Amino acid sequence: MADIVKATNITWHDHQVTEEERERANGHKPAVLWFTGLSGSGKSTLAQAVQGALFERGCQVFVLDGDNIRHGLNKDLGFSPEDREENIRRIGEVAKLFADAGMIAMTAFISPYRSDRDKARAVAGDKFIEVYVECALSVCEERDPKGLYKKARAGEIPEFTGISAPYEAPEAPELVIDTSQASLEDCAALVLGYLEQRGILQPQ
Amino acid sequence: MADIVKATNITWHDHQVTEEERERANGHKPAVLWFTGLSGSGKSTLAQAVQGALFERGCQVFVLDGDNIRHGLNKDLGFSPEDREENIRRIGEVAKLFADAGMIAMTAFISPYRSDRDKARAVAGDKFIEVYVECALSVCEERDPKGLYKKARAGEIPEFTGISAPYEAPEAPELVIDTSQASLEDCAALVLGYLEQRGILQPQ
Repeated sequence: MADIVKATNITWHDHQVTEEERERANGHKPAVLWFTGLSGSGKSTLAQAVQGALFERGCQVFVLDGDNIRHGLNKDLGFSPEDREENIRRIGEVAKLFADAGMIAMTAFISPYRSDRDKARAVAGDKFIEVYVECALSVCEERDPKGLYKKARAGEIPEFTGISAPYEAPEAPELVIDTSQASLEDCAALVLGYLEQRGILQPQ
Repeated sequence: MADIVKATNITWHDHQVTEEERERANGHKPAVLWFTGLSGSGKSTLAQAVQGALFERGCQVFVLDGDNIRHGLNKDLGFSPEDREENIRRIGEVAKLFADAGMIAMTAFISPYRSDRDKARAVAGDKFIEVYVECALSVCEERDPKGLYKKARAGEIPEFTGISAPYEAPEAPELVIDTSQASLEDCAALVLGYLEQRGILQPQ
């Protein structure tokens, strides 16, 4: 038995794929694009538009949002303060894993608390790019795509960000995009321009 | 204000990147390769070797293992039965997200319980490929790369799989690889051959 083990051990080696190898293969650097803003500010829509544009440029991209997180990884979490914090913590860790895999990961969650976003920044390190999706509350409330503001105003949703719970705007985000002032295409172009400027994308 | 909102809404659209588009861009289908087996059976080493080979073929691949999960996403979990179950549940969900991103995700965890693996299978659906990394306990114990069996035999690690806790071998795994009977290269080649046979990879 010992002979087999020895023979096996000799030929076993660790081929770790490095970050540099992934970057060379993909033609871009990895990143975590963290979109934060009020409900209805356009985080998900903007992230999807950026994803579409990056994909067309041949990039490896993925969006984490309520649709694929709340019913899967975080389906055990509710809306208590502890659960909201844990929700954002896990998203930060998963986004980091996607960046480790060479991808440009985008997250689209209200993530209203600075401390939670700062923890996600600490996890992703210099790959973290905070995108403040700015939009006046009145505009978000006018859009109200899911009718949530209406319910919040009626008192049917407790602790709703912007109405009955605080939104702590980023103090030093890498990027601020005001979705009430520009078209989606222009907003997405601003993000792509920033990624070129940072050297994450090759200029076209 | 309403004018701006309306103008904004008109130009906003959802460009969702589809699974088919990702497959075409990557040149392979997504998958979740779930390696299961005793400590020391060679799960991580095999997964890394398969990753290296797939990467060299231009595939999008990533390995989830103890190194990148236990100190990050699952650092809040201990080793109670509930925490072990939650550990595997989250890994299954994250692997599924990687597959949704078009990648071949590999997981290398003992994952000793059938029920936990079956849940991961249910999450990933037909993308799930269970790889039973078979290896006699005596061989694993002889290898003992981290000295864990020695500690377990000395009673220093409670509920150690194979010694003082059960390992429930897969009943119908897609693939069985005996790492005590073949070289790492041959074991990795078996996995790649299966991926070609399944149509996940294009034959070379």
